[in-house]
Amino acid sequence: MCRFLLYKGKSQIQLAHLLTRPAHSIINQSFDSRLRLDKRRPINGDGFGVGWYESNSGPDNTPCIFASVTPAWNNNNLARLAEKIKSPLVFAHVRASTSGTLSETNCHPWKYNKLMWMHNGHIQDFNKIKRKLQQSLREEIFLFVEGNTDSEWAFALFLNQLSNPEADNFDYKTLKTAMLKTIEQLNIWADEAGITEPSLLNFAVTDGCTVVCTRYISSKTEEAASLYFSSGTNFKEYKPGHYKMVKADKREDIVLVASEPLTFEKADWLIIPTNTCLVITPKFNVLLTPIKDQFYNIERAKKGNFTVPPAIM
Amino acid sequence: MCRFLLYKGKSQIQLAHLLTRPAHSIINQSFDSRLRLDKRRPINGDGFGVGWYESNSGPDNTPCIFASVTPAWNNNNLARLAEKIKSPLVFAHVRASTSGTLSETNCHPWKYNKLMWMHNGHIQDFNKIKRKLQQSLREEIFLFVEGNTDSEWAFALFLNQLSNPEADNFDYKTLKTAMLKTIEQLNIWADEAGITEPSLLNFAVTDGCTVVCTRYISSKTEEAASLYFSSGTNFKEYKPGHYKMVKADKREDIVLVASEPLTFEKADWLIIPTNTCLVITPKFNVLLTPIKDQFYNIERAKKGNFTVPPAIM
Amino acid sequence: MCRFLLYKGKSQIQLAHLLTRPAHSIINQSFDSRLRLDKRRPINGDGFGVGWYESNSGPDNTPCIFASVTPAWNNNNLARLAEKIKSPLVFAHVRASTSGTLSETNCHPWKYNKLMWMHNGHIQDFNKIKRKLQQSLREEIFLFVEGNTDSEWAFALFLNQLSNPEADNFDYKTLKTAMLKTIEQLNIWADEAGITEPSLLNFAVTDGCTVVCTRYISSKTEEAASLYFSSGTNFKEYKPGHYKMVKADKREDIVLVASEPLTFEKADWLIIPTNTCLVITPKFNVLLTPIKDQFYNIERAKKGNFTVPPAIM
Amino acid sequence: MCRFLLYKGKSQIQLAHLLTRPAHSIINQSFDSRLRLDKRRPINGDGFGVGWYESNSGPDNTPCIFASVTPAWNNNNLARLAEKIKSPLVFAHVRASTSGTLSETNCHPWKYNKLMWMHNGHIQDFNKIKRKLQQSLREEIFLFVEGNTDSEWAFALFLNQLSNPEADNFDYKTLKTAMLKTIEQLNIWADEAGITEPSLLNFAVTDGCTVVCTRYISSKTEEAASLYFSSGTNFKEYKPGHYKMVKADKREDIVLVASEPLTFEKADWLIIPTNTCLVITPKFNVLLTPIKDQFYNIERAKKGNFTVPPAIM
Repeated sequence: MCRFLLYKGKSQIQLAHLLTRPAHSIINQSFDSRLRLDKRRPINGDGFGVGWYESNSGPDNTPCIFASVTPAWNNNNLARLAEKIKSPLVFAHVRASTSGTLSETNCHPWKYNKLMWMHNGHIQDFNKIKRKLQQSLREEIFLFVEGNTDSEWAFALFLNQLSNPEADNFDYKTLKTAMLKTIEQLNIWADEAGITEPSLLNFAVTDGCTVVCTRYISSKTEEAASLYFSSGTNFKEYKPGHYKMVKADKREDIVLVASEPLTFEKADWLIIPTNTCLVITPKFNVLLTPIKDQFYNIERAKKGNFTVPPAIM
Repeated sequence: MCRFLLYKGKSQIQLAHLLTRPAHSIINQSFDSRLRLDKRRPINGDGFGVGWYESNSGPDNTPCIFASVTPAWNNNNLARLAEKIKSPLVFAHVRASTSGTLSETNCHPWKYNKLMWMHNGHIQDFNKIKRKLQQSLREEIFLFVEGNTDSEWAFALFLNQLSNPEADNFDYKTLKTAMLKTIEQLNIWADEAGITEPSLLNFAVTDGCTVVCTRYISSKTEEAASLYFSSGTNFKEYKPGHYKMVKADKREDIVLVASEPLTFEKADWLIIPTNTCLVITPKFNVLLTPIKDQFYNIERAKKGNFTVPPAIM
Repeated sequence: MCRFLLYKGKSQIQLAHLLTRPAHSIINQSFDSRLRLDKRRPINGDGFGVGWYESNSGPDNTPCIFASVTPAWNNNNLARLAEKIKSPLVFAHVRASTSGTLSETNCHPWKYNKLMWMHNGHIQDFNKIKRKLQQSLREEIFLFVEGNTDSEWAFALFLNQLSNPEADNFDYKTLKTAMLKTIEQLNIWADEAGITEPSLLNFAVTDGCTVVCTRYISSKTEEAASLYFSSGTNFKEYKPGHYKMVKADKREDIVLVASEPLTFEKADWLIIPTNTCLVITPKFNVLLTPIKDQFYNIERAKKGNFTVPPAIM
Repeated sequence: MCRFLLYKGKSQIQLAHLLTRPAHSIINQSFDSRLRLDKRRPINGDGFGVGWYESNSGPDNTPCIFASVTPAWNNNNLARLAEKIKSPLVFAHVRASTSGTLSETNCHPWKYNKLMWMHNGHIQDFNKIKRKLQQSLREEIFLFVEGNTDSEWAFALFLNQLSNPEADNFDYKTLKTAMLKTIEQLNIWADEAGITEPSLLNFAVTDGCTVVCTRYISSKTEEAASLYFSSGTNFKEYKPGHYKMVKADKREDIVLVASEPLTFEKADWLIIPTNTCLVITPKFNVLLTPIKDQFYNIERAKKGNFTVPPAIM
């Protein structure tokens, strides 16, 4: 299974602080990880990608993506770019392929004008719903897909939920609604195809301002792939390779979401409950909502160590 | 535009004699070619592939394919393999992309069990017929495609014309009929989509015994991409890098078909007329047939320097 | 033969305006070039590299380098980065290998702390002087080299001329002297080894402020590899893919040096005379000096269309 | 740390039986290995290589090498070639880089005419002896090296011990002597440079007939990197992915040497004692000799589960 990471900050972060310097960065995670569900594919060596925005707004604020099929831990271009590039909104992904051959077109994240997407998990028996998914798409979205992964086709399905996927701005509710409809549609097709094994649908999408992501499994009893959350005012390197999240006051200047904690400070990280949608608004409000469909299970939802406000339970 | 080469011989040839040693080999052609129609993409540096069979028959005689996205002229693996591998049936292809991103999954040739396919040219406005083509395919063929080129989808369309594309043996007429139906179907869809610019459809397919290839354009007046033919008893290197086709007697022990002549001996090569289907049977009979559809033009067909028997005109 | 390009501007340029958008950019030059001396290697498809500084000064202002072995014209990462990255000082290089295998470590430019280097040409019979060159180097410079090209070893030789190659700042005279000593030393070794064919030594080096480059051949009669020069106040795209150098007043805000003109405006470009050293100072003074060694030829030097001031002739 | 595998058989083996099909093949070892000393680099994802001979003799019987920088477990070319290529003598290597950047020129094995070489381990503080090593080499061997790894330079040092490294045939004693002199010379230089940490020198070399390999560490007390040995008459797949070595009679038709056992049958594999030289002669005699230098330790040597004949202890 893959792993991903997203950063949204009021100020820019140098990519190296997320990608290459932390002892437990996403790239070092690709070496040695202990939290994965899927023991069959123990190494994330099947390519990686990183996408970032230059600023928090602006008409040309489309993301830039750097992807490669060689392993992230030995990519000189990545190491050099990470030392120079700064960004207030970063998606990063290391891949262990479950579907789709090894090629740059199959590396996450993908972009469509201002939108950027990545996925940790897999759509169960994707081949059984691939044709239906493709037929449901509007022509320009059908033709946009370049690779052959379930994850990129899921992005296409998401885009198809938006009336204007090339818009300059999106209301956060629009993105969240499209995300939930994407999952709902995948569940409908899985049901029609008689697929009983669950899909692992940790998705993340952003337009450069808002971030919407999910920790989701189409099962009432199993756990979704892990997803953690951290926020604060400063992501600080207190000794080489060792970082912690500093919370100077109640402000949220930085939000990190990751398949596994990036720091060794346990208190920095909260587990996002299974089958939850997380939204980071442009004003840095973080909204957690349970996804209350046929797979919702209130006992499982309580396992996350968020003090989830009763209102949203 | 791309270029391709195919060899069928009664005995094996070392790949180097086709690929790397001839001064005007397909790889050196990728540097410097003078015969191409498409001046917009003057270099075939967008990957290459070579596929070969170990023998002329046998149940396990599926092809082996080596493909790469780095230019053929500087690929050490190719240079070393070509010095060692021998085969009686070889397809080779260098690519200048017109559709499909640069990835190994987009490199020709492709295989499906015993069948192997490559294409020189492009399907005009492929995006306008892509969805119809995909919808026409049987499920296992739809799911077999891994890349996103017009050429691989054309292979899928070809496979879809066969009742059993996983058969061990194919009658040459079966393969030829499927090839002609593939072209016919592409023409129908182009017509339905209102596409008026012609497609360039030099296709080649083999099952390891029979070869069927076409020089074709969906235009009544224009010329198809070039295609040459040579046959004899020995493809001989008479001085380093310089080859000629030796014709010891009337037997045909070797047949070569190529986008451009591999030798500087003009007499070795015959031009295959535009809109012609060429078949090499398992017994080395070479059959040329004009493709007599709405784009057939007898004046243009006569331009090839084959003395085409009146019977097949 | 390779080709290179360098840009130094008072303000930042988006890399796309140099690399990907101009119809005759260095990447499109790699397709189709008419000015090269070496007809044996007609295509620059053996990798490329681009290096840039974020600003014009500062203690951390080391260059960032992006290099790849796949052809520049089909590299999605390059295309995307070029649309986003801006810099006041850029080196770019496309490679047609004459020495050194295809690998990222053999792609120009290289960097050493703040210094960046590239080379267009080759050191004749480099193998005959390789050992002497290596033995002449200080330990840390000997160990710094990662690849196996004549060009990277020439960079090492240049570094060895500097008393402190890791300095934060260099006087432009220091860099120029080191460059001329590098050429002189190569000539001495060539002489000792009995090498009579000339070397083509178009070198460029920068510390992020000063640029020193040469158009040089170790021959009294032959021409060096081409090198052009343009300066002005604005490098402007007047229609898609078509650029010109605008000279609003006598200020030099932009200096471009390139193996071939980037624009179709003949008047924008001056030929740098063979065996000349060009310096761009931090204050944008452009100094041309003939290299008056045993290969100096005043008649040949006059062929450049610079009105070279008599003083420096 | 890397791992390697070598096969020598009286008849040819299909590469897939060594590389891709065994559940614990060298490629699957690259995913999940439990026996390594170096925990810092837990994944062998930094490229791989495989080299093989077509037959057991003959003037043109030079090895063919296929190497790649993408991980072995996801390399379609390797998977396809392994299904087709058969050989009586195979070297395979997966790499976790300790020195040398990621490039094909840094992938093992390397060849020099008929000789082929690979290394599992590293030369401690190689930079401190690199210059001396290079200066000791004859010119043609100095110039032969293309990469920048300690392992390839060790091959050069080995070649330099041979009076004619381009010979068609080598006596097995010649190869063994050159191997021991290579280790001895490395130890002398390490001593002169004041290097106290040990080097791990599991080397393997062959001329296509004889194989010489070592399990060696330049320490009197520590264990060398693991190395196992298996021999028999048939390397048999008894159920998918599960192999065992069949010993039909006392003949040795197959010899396998590997960093880790390829089968789950414990009895198939013997540990080669630390600081031992193993020779497989053209007639399939397997000779084990302790390397009795300053690092020899008879107590440690007894730990291998070979019943080493007293004569050679």
